[in-house]
Amino acid sequence: MSHDKQFTLYTTTGGPNGWKVEFVLTELGLSYESIHLQPGQQKEPDYTKYNPNGRIPALVDHRNSDFVVWESDAILAYLVEIYDPTHRISAVTPEDKVHQLQWLFFQSSGQGPYFGQQFHFNRYHPVKLPTAIERYQKEIIRILGVLDSVLSKQEWLVAGKCTIADISFVPWNILALDPSLVDLGVNVETEFPAFYGWHQKLVSMESIKKVWAHRRAMLESQA
Amino acid sequence: MSHDKQFTLYTTTGGPNGWKVEFVLTELGLSYESIHLQPGQQKEPDYTKYNPNGRIPALVDHRNSDFVVWESDAILAYLVEIYDPTHRISAVTPEDKVHQLQWLFFQSSGQGPYFGQQFHFNRYHPVKLPTAIERYQKEIIRILGVLDSVLSKQEWLVAGKCTIADISFVPWNILALDPSLVDLGVNVETEFPAFYGWHQKLVSMESIKKVWAHRRAMLESQA
Repeated sequence: MSHDKQFTLYTTTGGPNGWKVEFVLTELGLSYESIHLQPGQQKEPDYTKYNPNGRIPALVDHRNSDFVVWESDAILAYLVEIYDPTHRISAVTPEDKVHQLQWLFFQSSGQGPYFGQQFHFNRYHPVKLPTAIERYQKEIIRILGVLDSVLSKQEWLVAGKCTIADISFVPWNILALDPSLVDLGVNVETEFPAFYGWHQKLVSMESIKKVWAHRRAMLESQA
Repeated sequence: MSHDKQFTLYTTTGGPNGWKVEFVLTELGLSYESIHLQPGQQKEPDYTKYNPNGRIPALVDHRNSDFVVWESDAILAYLVEIYDPTHRISAVTPEDKVHQLQWLFFQSSGQGPYFGQQFHFNRYHPVKLPTAIERYQKEIIRILGVLDSVLSKQEWLVAGKCTIADISFVPWNILALDPSLVDLGVNVETEFPAFYGWHQKLVSMESIKKVWAHRRAMLESQA
């Protein structure tokens, strides 16, 4: 490797999933070098040797024999398992750890893919398909409602504190709440106040603010 | 509860995700009662008190203070963590456990949602959208290719043996390979031989054969 940081993170600038790993690395004060792949590079052997799925992110831990892990939520679980011994942003008890995992799976299977499909059909699909756009718009709103129903009864998703379960939802939520990117047709602040308050607390965290500002600067420099 | 089994599993007959939990419960010899919800019941308070996401499956462990967990892959991780002390179908080392989780996240975020979208647009969407059908058909084939590329170099996804990571892929793969349900436009056996051989080994497991035969019988009795 060409740097002396503990981790190498393979990621892209535009997509959301690498940034959640940067949030957690930054929050835990871990040193890392990000390699931002260009479109198409994820499919090349230099990268698929790390991640055969050809998607970002993938993390290499140079202080653990160059251990490689991919799938963003598996990376978060790995990082706190090894590098969060004081449980700063992770559950402690066996039961809370199971629920932390449950919310990570909800993020990876419920939020990520469906929010991603909305962006695809809204912005990138070769033809305009109103019923497909509507399908995923409704699914985003449904998921905001699920989170709101839970967060109206508790401050955080699990363990009574901010954990990787909460942090994992942040990048897609920032994008979904940006009216320049997507029109959800609802006022999230008034329709889903518990969700909205939770999201505001998360995006006010110093680590998240710093990493997201870095993303913005990178995108602006490319524009 | 109205039974003396260790677990109550809330599930549905048609959907794939509850069956993977039954595979693992059966393989581990654990006693459970399945409650098959009727369409719409997942959205009712009697069920959303267990799973606020209003989706199946959810598992209640009566011997662990009625502990509740939802998200099918979180359920699998919970079951082996507590009830597979000899690691019959689970990874042993910390590194293998991380990779087991990585493949579970690939299943939950990569296979499940996209195979599900293909079924949706192919069978249930109110209008025929050829470009949407094609999008998800291509994604299924891409994912079969990712699995094939890995399984051409190793017999199982992780730890050199069959684990919950492999088992988690089975229900959607059975459905995707059923020509009466979906036409992928490729010969999976010859195009993806390593994938195909792995899938055949999995569906030949006694636990999986028994549970899937039970599903077939239930569907036939409803027809």
